[in-house]
Amino acid sequence: MSSGIRTDLALESRELNPDIEGVEEQTEERERMTISRIKITDRTAAEKLDKPIGKYVTLDAPELSNRPLDLFEQMSGALSEELYNMFAGLKDDATVLVVGLGNRSITSDSLGPRVAERIYVTRHVTEYMPDVLPGTVRSVCSVAPGVLGVTGIETMEIVRGVKEYAKPDMIIAIDALASRRAARINTTIQLTDTGISPGSGIGNNRKGLNSEAFGVPVIAIGVPLVVHAATITQEVISLIADKTGLHGDEEKLKGLAEQVISENLGQMVVTPKDIDSIVEDMSGIIATGINMALFGKSFEDVRMLIA
Amino acid sequence: MSSGIRTDLALESRELNPDIEGVEEQTEERERMTISRIKITDRTAAEKLDKPIGKYVTLDAPELSNRPLDLFEQMSGALSEELYNMFAGLKDDATVLVVGLGNRSITSDSLGPRVAERIYVTRHVTEYMPDVLPGTVRSVCSVAPGVLGVTGIETMEIVRGVKEYAKPDMIIAIDALASRRAARINTTIQLTDTGISPGSGIGNNRKGLNSEAFGVPVIAIGVPLVVHAATITQEVISLIADKTGLHGDEEKLKGLAEQVISENLGQMVVTPKDIDSIVEDMSGIIATGINMALFGKSFEDVRMLIA
Amino acid sequence: MSSGIRTDLALESRELNPDIEGVEEQTEERERMTISRIKITDRTAAEKLDKPIGKYVTLDAPELSNRPLDLFEQMSGALSEELYNMFAGLKDDATVLVVGLGNRSITSDSLGPRVAERIYVTRHVTEYMPDVLPGTVRSVCSVAPGVLGVTGIETMEIVRGVKEYAKPDMIIAIDALASRRAARINTTIQLTDTGISPGSGIGNNRKGLNSEAFGVPVIAIGVPLVVHAATITQEVISLIADKTGLHGDEEKLKGLAEQVISENLGQMVVTPKDIDSIVEDMSGIIATGINMALFGKSFEDVRMLIA
Amino acid sequence: MSSGIRTDLALESRELNPDIEGVEEQTEERERMTISRIKITDRTAAEKLDKPIGKYVTLDAPELSNRPLDLFEQMSGALSEELYNMFAGLKDDATVLVVGLGNRSITSDSLGPRVAERIYVTRHVTEYMPDVLPGTVRSVCSVAPGVLGVTGIETMEIVRGVKEYAKPDMIIAIDALASRRAARINTTIQLTDTGISPGSGIGNNRKGLNSEAFGVPVIAIGVPLVVHAATITQEVISLIADKTGLHGDEEKLKGLAEQVISENLGQMVVTPKDIDSIVEDMSGIIATGINMALFGKSFEDVRMLIA
Repeated sequence: MSSGIRTDLALESRELNPDIEGVEEQTEERERMTISRIKITDRTAAEKLDKPIGKYVTLDAPELSNRPLDLFEQMSGALSEELYNMFAGLKDDATVLVVGLGNRSITSDSLGPRVAERIYVTRHVTEYMPDVLPGTVRSVCSVAPGVLGVTGIETMEIVRGVKEYAKPDMIIAIDALASRRAARINTTIQLTDTGISPGSGIGNNRKGLNSEAFGVPVIAIGVPLVVHAATITQEVISLIADKTGLHGDEEKLKGLAEQVISENLGQMVVTPKDIDSIVEDMSGIIATGINMALFGKSFEDVRMLIA
Repeated sequence: MSSGIRTDLALESRELNPDIEGVEEQTEERERMTISRIKITDRTAAEKLDKPIGKYVTLDAPELSNRPLDLFEQMSGALSEELYNMFAGLKDDATVLVVGLGNRSITSDSLGPRVAERIYVTRHVTEYMPDVLPGTVRSVCSVAPGVLGVTGIETMEIVRGVKEYAKPDMIIAIDALASRRAARINTTIQLTDTGISPGSGIGNNRKGLNSEAFGVPVIAIGVPLVVHAATITQEVISLIADKTGLHGDEEKLKGLAEQVISENLGQMVVTPKDIDSIVEDMSGIIATGINMALFGKSFEDVRMLIA
Repeated sequence: MSSGIRTDLALESRELNPDIEGVEEQTEERERMTISRIKITDRTAAEKLDKPIGKYVTLDAPELSNRPLDLFEQMSGALSEELYNMFAGLKDDATVLVVGLGNRSITSDSLGPRVAERIYVTRHVTEYMPDVLPGTVRSVCSVAPGVLGVTGIETMEIVRGVKEYAKPDMIIAIDALASRRAARINTTIQLTDTGISPGSGIGNNRKGLNSEAFGVPVIAIGVPLVVHAATITQEVISLIADKTGLHGDEEKLKGLAEQVISENLGQMVVTPKDIDSIVEDMSGIIATGINMALFGKSFEDVRMLIA
Repeated sequence: MSSGIRTDLALESRELNPDIEGVEEQTEERERMTISRIKITDRTAAEKLDKPIGKYVTLDAPELSNRPLDLFEQMSGALSEELYNMFAGLKDDATVLVVGLGNRSITSDSLGPRVAERIYVTRHVTEYMPDVLPGTVRSVCSVAPGVLGVTGIETMEIVRGVKEYAKPDMIIAIDALASRRAARINTTIQLTDTGISPGSGIGNNRKGLNSEAFGVPVIAIGVPLVVHAATITQEVISLIADKTGLHGDEEKLKGLAEQVISENLGQMVVTPKDIDSIVEDMSGIIATGINMALFGKSFEDVRMLIA
């Protein structure tokens, strides 16, 4: 991206590059949330936006920061619909593997493992005791593979190992994201059919958790939970450059800022003070949304049996 | 076992069957702990004790329930020595996979995952940046595969998937055990070179996490953390039968007790009130013992780099 | 109680003593729950039931153990109604102190502190910024005083200290209870206007957390979360005595059982294996029930502002 | 302070104002840590440094971020000595109240409650069973009063209520601090005999937790665990102003930065990614340091009895 500012949200990449061609956009305003649907359709746009070709849906509900229970339900419902649309065509008896990425022991990185724990898993029942389930129910399994620094094994190696035994028809991966804007942290969910790509996001897809690398559709669901300290400072400098007319020096100033930050803030993240409860809320919303999408009409029956 | 009382400790099986042949025993009394070494040498003894042929070492330190920090260190040291003896001959550059079995979300079942998290993993360093490590250091990785009810995947399938990518020369598995005696719960560690066997313990070894099924040595480390309610009641009945001379009715009484318990106590476990801190202490003791045994002289260097 | 079996539930005391006079009873069957209302009206009954004179309401929903979210809401709603009836007459601008008893670090004893954390507190708002609240809203504050072994201070001394500054018109206390029957553990809530009484339950009320000692109404809400090991064994012996006709020896057998248990099980408790999620669920149900009862029509407004 | 940058560390205030009179300083370099002792001796210096008159000791061990267990012990030992010197003269049978400030449910704010939980409390033993303790042992109690937003009661009101019943001769308060420098977050402990002062730090002492307000000595122990986002950005701007010679505009730039941040980062904090384990480590180090200082020669005996 021209700006050099890192974001995991396609919506933010688009905001920074509003005039690029090869992007289809649609925004739906609901009473308490905004749903934005972005489709990156060609390679040039993908490169400029630093995001793979594919669909990106963003649910944003600013009021979520007040923790209203009924909005949690609405958000789960909306996520469920968007997710359902994204895997339209998946067979009723398909096997789905849910992968919760991240480090459970670091609050701001624990979204994936917490969601994975709350998924209604049915694979062991569909395999060994299919009769206890009502009609045809999807075969769902769920893992939290941990992170390289804790396991000593590449996350993707573990997921590959699990895939070989569980043989899923589709994978849903959940991860914490980085945003450019602090205000998005407790209010936004992104889902995409491009899966998860390491680093730059384009090129090198073989190492990612995506359909190219795994041979089955991979849907990724993410929530921005951190803002990088560098991002914040660069934002401030951009604004200052705007207001002071120091534009000639802006790149130089950013270079200095990056140097100061990398010396002082290597391992720092910027999070909301109440990150603990935000991660708890969001993992509940997402797990419920996934469970609803995967089990559809059988949701209540499965919940009774499994949860 | 003749008594019908379930225990995961070879020491307790032996106590119940003190006269069986085919067992070698040795007990070492130290100042603050007792180390018991049992070797089951033939198939008949294995069947009678309901434990596979192999070595079983039990460390018992009753004073541990007072939580003295210096005894924690002694216990880690003793575990490290016994573990080291058990895998004598393992090459200095071998790859070791530590598997933390159990359900992290259930305190009494969370020992394995908690130990797995505290292992100093080096595999990613030995593979990609070997120069930062001092001399030859073992390549250690660690996973907590979760349990069937949470993942929908057989634990052993996940471990097999991981094994194929990590290619370990040895596996160390950690699990919570059931004991017959409540007093052992916060004071005892068992290690064995027979790995972990499902259900009955003998026969059906193919489904276990052991050398027969996995093709590499598997050492299991366990701590008794629950006493089954049925066990307690049966103990009481045995004692009562002893004291009342009602031996004629003992089996009938036990049958009645089992019926009452299965109707009322299906999913109940008996744990110490302070199980939370016991699991925390024990996972620290065991992780340190394993780290010391695996890294030996390089322990401090690895700790500085990794922990 | 004649049986010598300890229970914190008036309903169970009554079951053991169905024919005592001085007790009014009413049972209401709803679709998914049973509400039992017991009133102990005289001193003789209080002594026989080992419970103070007053009202006891028990909500029981066996299906709760399946964790259905909609039943959580029904249970919160029913608790709210019963609680509201119990403090009928409390002024709209009254100050209420919620006290979460127990030890947060011991899962089976952490219900009180967890509920206390989830109460919508308004006292600091009603005192310093009353205008931000809609109309007249109760002034609610909440503490978790800890337990003697962790603080070194009698719980009641801390509550008294808080009471002097917060000056509540009513106190609601939440605590984990012991039950005689394992099946009640994840399905039952008791509320009573008799507060919490130490030990035997009658006599010595001065040391309890009740209206006699604190000079304001005290409502106690409790959930059975442990079954004492002794209780279980005694149950088994009773049943065995029934079935074997050994009634002559029953008391002797119980004496022996008690001896065995006190030697072996001093600090053991019997809990469901999934006590972690039960306590989590129940603390949510109770906190919501209390919040609904205290804020009534203003519930949603307060939630938006506070939670 | 002239700079407008907020810090809770006297050491940092001094660094920003190195030439002010009325300050005595001493720095002791040890093998693995630096101990800095600052004494603010007059009112003018106190105002300029924005810190009350009194003693401030800072322990700094940069290597702590590698989590070496032996340095944990050294740090506990050094804290114990400095603390002991600060309350020299306290009677052997004095009563001490430890107060853990902060919100247990927010990781970066949970240091105080976590330390409070690990203090060896003896007050209930010295009061009711003095004979079980060896010789004369201090009577220690400990509370975590919670925060206003969770309890609805001013923290100081709760502490006052507890003080009236526990009647301590000295109070030790533990709290998380804010630092100007990210590098100090996992390496520094400050202790001071000035207690804890709200807001500006001078003036308005009546509302603080200090000897003036409580009538007994109050020692505060703190660890910097957050860096305010505003601080970081201002640091970057200062450095940029230095390097670009834009000093004329520095104050204007900082004003702009503050505006951007207050609009975007109201409730954000900057913490290390591994704040969870840092808080865990630091609460262990501090609790051990306090326990050693309070019980001295009886430390081991008390630990055996109490912990």
